Amino acid sequence: MKFSKFFAPTSKEAPKDAVLKSHILLSRAGYIMQQSSGIYNYLPLGYSVIENIKKIVNKHMQNSGANYLNLSYATDANLWKKSGRYYQFGDELLRFLDRKENEYVLAPTHEESMVDVAASFLKSYKQLPINLYQITSKFRDEARPRFGLMRAKEFIMKDAYSFHSDEQSLDDEFLNMQNTYCKILEELNLDYRIVEADSGAIGGSGSREFMVLSDAGEDDILLCTKCSYAANVEAAKRAKKTCANERPEGDASKFKTPNIKSIEELSNFFKVDSFYTIKAIVKKAIYENEQKLVVFFVRGCDELEETKAKSACKALELIDIDENELKQHGLIAGFIGPIGLAGVDFYIDNELENEENMICGANEIDYHLINIKITNFNKQRYADLIKVQKDDNCPHCGNKLDSTKGIEVGHIFKLGTKYSSSMNATYLDENGKTQPYIMGCYGIGVSRLLAVLAQTKGDDKGLVFDKKVAPFYIDIIIQDIKDNDQTKYANDVYKTLCDEFGDGLILLDDRNERIGAKLKDYELIGIPYALVIGKNYLEGKVELINRATLEKELIDASDISKIINLLK
Amino acid sequence: MKFSKFFAPTSKEAPKDAVLKSHILLSRAGYIMQQSSGIYNYLPLGYSVIENIKKIVNKHMQNSGANYLNLSYATDANLWKKSGRYYQFGDELLRFLDRKENEYVLAPTHEESMVDVAASFLKSYKQLPINLYQITSKFRDEARPRFGLMRAKEFIMKDAYSFHSDEQSLDDEFLNMQNTYCKILEELNLDYRIVEADSGAIGGSGSREFMVLSDAGEDDILLCTKCSYAANVEAAKRAKKTCANERPEGDASKFKTPNIKSIEELSNFFKVDSFYTIKAIVKKAIYENEQKLVVFFVRGCDELEETKAKSACKALELIDIDENELKQHGLIAGFIGPIGLAGVDFYIDNELENEENMICGANEIDYHLINIKITNFNKQRYADLIKVQKDDNCPHCGNKLDSTKGIEVGHIFKLGTKYSSSMNATYLDENGKTQPYIMGCYGIGVSRLLAVLAQTKGDDKGLVFDKKVAPFYIDIIIQDIKDNDQTKYANDVYKTLCDEFGDGLILLDDRNERIGAKLKDYELIGIPYALVIGKNYLEGKVELINRATLEKELIDASDISKIINLLK
Repeated sequence: MKFSKFFAPTSKEAPKDAVLKSHILLSRAGYIMQQSSGIYNYLPLGYSVIENIKKIVNKHMQNSGANYLNLSYATDANLWKKSGRYYQFGDELLRFLDRKENEYVLAPTHEESMVDVAASFLKSYKQLPINLYQITSKFRDEARPRFGLMRAKEFIMKDAYSFHSDEQSLDDEFLNMQNTYCKILEELNLDYRIVEADSGAIGGSGSREFMVLSDAGEDDILLCTKCSYAANVEAAKRAKKTCANERPEGDASKFKTPNIKSIEELSNFFKVDSFYTIKAIVKKAIYENEQKLVVFFVRGCDELEETKAKSACKALELIDIDENELKQHGLIAGFIGPIGLAGVDFYIDNELENEENMICGANEIDYHLINIKITNFNKQRYADLIKVQKDDNCPHCGNKLDSTKGIEVGHIFKLGTKYSSSMNATYLDENGKTQPYIMGCYGIGVSRLLAVLAQTKGDDKGLVFDKKVAPFYIDIIIQDIKDNDQTKYANDVYKTLCDEFGDGLILLDDRNERIGAKLKDYELIGIPYALVIGKNYLEGKVELINRATLEKELIDASDISKIINLLK
Repeated sequence: MKFSKFFAPTSKEAPKDAVLKSHILLSRAGYIMQQSSGIYNYLPLGYSVIENIKKIVNKHMQNSGANYLNLSYATDANLWKKSGRYYQFGDELLRFLDRKENEYVLAPTHEESMVDVAASFLKSYKQLPINLYQITSKFRDEARPRFGLMRAKEFIMKDAYSFHSDEQSLDDEFLNMQNTYCKILEELNLDYRIVEADSGAIGGSGSREFMVLSDAGEDDILLCTKCSYAANVEAAKRAKKTCANERPEGDASKFKTPNIKSIEELSNFFKVDSFYTIKAIVKKAIYENEQKLVVFFVRGCDELEETKAKSACKALELIDIDENELKQHGLIAGFIGPIGLAGVDFYIDNELENEENMICGANEIDYHLINIKITNFNKQRYADLIKVQKDDNCPHCGNKLDSTKGIEVGHIFKLGTKYSSSMNATYLDENGKTQPYIMGCYGIGVSRLLAVLAQTKGDDKGLVFDKKVAPFYIDIIIQDIKDNDQTKYANDVYKTLCDEFGDGLILLDDRNERIGAKLKDYELIGIPYALVIGKNYLEGKVELINRATLEKELIDASDISKIINLLK
């Protein structure tokens, strides 16, 4: 490809809303262009890397035995009504009508469509297991699209769905997909961790995320400093927390605590570690057809993990409330406790069950209860509610946990029969009995991977891609296009390399621009190598640049085989 | 790929609404599955052919110098409002809102998005010309989706858009694209014609369609029996029609013609050829913000071409009306003529201008005018309105035209400045003056090509694909999977061929099915070759089948190189 004919609009300026390196560099280097909030066009450079990522994903998915297909973008809303997600997905779901008022969904994931395919054709256990996948654009009406391709309203995803007649087969495929994802991320040379995850809106039982470690990540991850345990904070567990500080003792009683509202004040007032106090967090829980207040109790020294809280009360969403709303529901801010709490739903963190000598609100202004044992509550009141933190102990080996940030690039789920049951999608088993499929689903964010590669590999001069994903292998730069010798030599090398690797992979910078501008563009665009044909060509030398290291080397102009070997 | 693990759900039954061979075969062979009216899923076999077609399209587009990119599916409706097509496109345009009530279009073509890209980056004449293309799904809310992939609501299209600073450059690229399309269709081995076409809703000046000849085609094409002239009936011209029969003579006068309403009656009444009579066709023309009656006058022996009529009055749509509506507008059915016609818009076919001794309605019940000269009308009243028919004469060489049916698979347009002017998309010319881009656009129906290949190559047993597009090169069929010798040999051949061609291209039918069922599936699916390992294997022979000819040949089982050479 000759640069003079190539559409690669580089720019010195980044979009105003761009804060992440990946967003800034991909925009400046002419890889992407925002069309509207959260919606991007992939320009030739960007789409070339997307295609390369797709190739890698495809190769490993094919090797895994999965079947490649392509489902419609417009998805019959009736399928989503059957599964129930039409109602549960809320504002994130984009919907539209055709001229006959038939309703469609622009799907964020394709469980419903894929179950429809399966139910149409997979009638017998003999046809199972099977794994079907596609790589297409998905749509999610994000409340706040941001960070460029990282959190977009339209994004490219590889989504796979497996259908089984028994749990063991699902477990096997789940592991097969986990291994496949590892191969993909290793081929992309990304520093990632597999973490335990919450299943979110897709639902199901087991669920693991593939997190690329990065300060720019939106996810908090807990990693054991010793064993292999790793989890998203939304799902992280810990060994039960203990406290070395003295436990308060005495009989249960009500104690006047005038104006003592915060955990810190309470802890100071009674001179006890906040470990022995109970904190109440009140939220408004949003359901399909109702809203209600819910109180969550955790230790004073702990924080509420909102995703866990949402799961506990099975809400679609939790919203903060203010003191007035509390009052309207007869709750007294600063003095809420589980004992004698009536007329409102509440949940208590698992670790508090049977704890003794605890201090909590008395549900009466200016009073707390002390030396309380947390017992006699209905089993359903208890749930895992706490946010595991750095220096908590590993639930597997007991060693300290560390925390870091990650970008989710993949997610694998065991869905079980969640979708097949609700959509009545069945096969006939060995005994001729109808059974719902047991399902798994497996996603990789393809456009997000482009952003992640830009984010984690880019430097302060621009993007850095390796040969497997880069839009070109090498950029042959003519310093002065008016110099016939330079131009002739460059064109000869260009032709030789095109013959060897195909002309889609070799870039010839034949533009009438200053060498400084050409080198800046080269560094910004992030092609693995550049060959600069400049003044040294008089002495039979040309300069080879390695983009990753920015090392420069003068090589013999006649030694093209060196370059061929480098690119092979 | 082993058939036992492959998702290729063949069936004996076709969808109830399937009338075309392509729709029936692609459904029965497990290539496609309808999700809802006009919306299809591509199953693995179907998507594999789509990918192969995309590769061919991509190869030739890359060779043409065009830049490959990928624009968002969700398209900001404001871009469509700027171009005006938001209002003009009518019910065929699918629209949706996001949670913030921003409006989007699911684009049927991407002129607006592509102009937005160009206007963002192509600021100088130095950056022109450039051609940008993509291959993605498009959306068109067809009033009556039908014929499977032929006329679907969601379809895959290659769409290219070129930007120029002068007409000559556009002409060059138009020709470049025409040649590129020829290469694509020739590589697909399709019998096609390039025809002159109407520009339709996309607008612009020159426009040519690529028509694959087929009885199943929805388009009527006129072809010269001698020269290369070819045109869609919507745009076809003819040498001015003449008539050897006697011309009526005399002075202009009004003549009582009681109850003589049809051209046939009129022609009999006056004993003249209907060539000398004038027919009136009244339609209701639909505009963005109004509707009105329009009368079209053509010779009694001609038919009105509706697309030409629509262009003449610049309507979005023409609708039939009944006699009552005529009356309400003071028009008398059977007696409408151009002379003295008031209060209604009308157009007269070009060929009638200055014709003498014509007979037409007197706009008075039971009266016609005779010996009328069609003159003294405003120039704008005249337009090309007639439907050119078989046996009319070629406008280029004067020889007879023939008519046939075609399926449109490609369309190239000279758009001129239609979009760039309305969207105010400009560059700076050599004198630093802003100028709107001069544009061309070029489309190929990729999913329609799959249907066209099925339609034109398939036979009564199933689909027939050649190696370039087929999902597999060869199907290795084990007659009896319980026969260890057969199975071992088949697996050896399978491995050898996979090593040679990649395992994505070789199918091994290892299913526990009767040989008859396997052969039926082979014929239905349309893989170029089959190698049947059956009873003859005892004598060291295996059977090679050529799907296109259905010829069978016994070959030496040891002669694998014969097969390798065949597939190379």
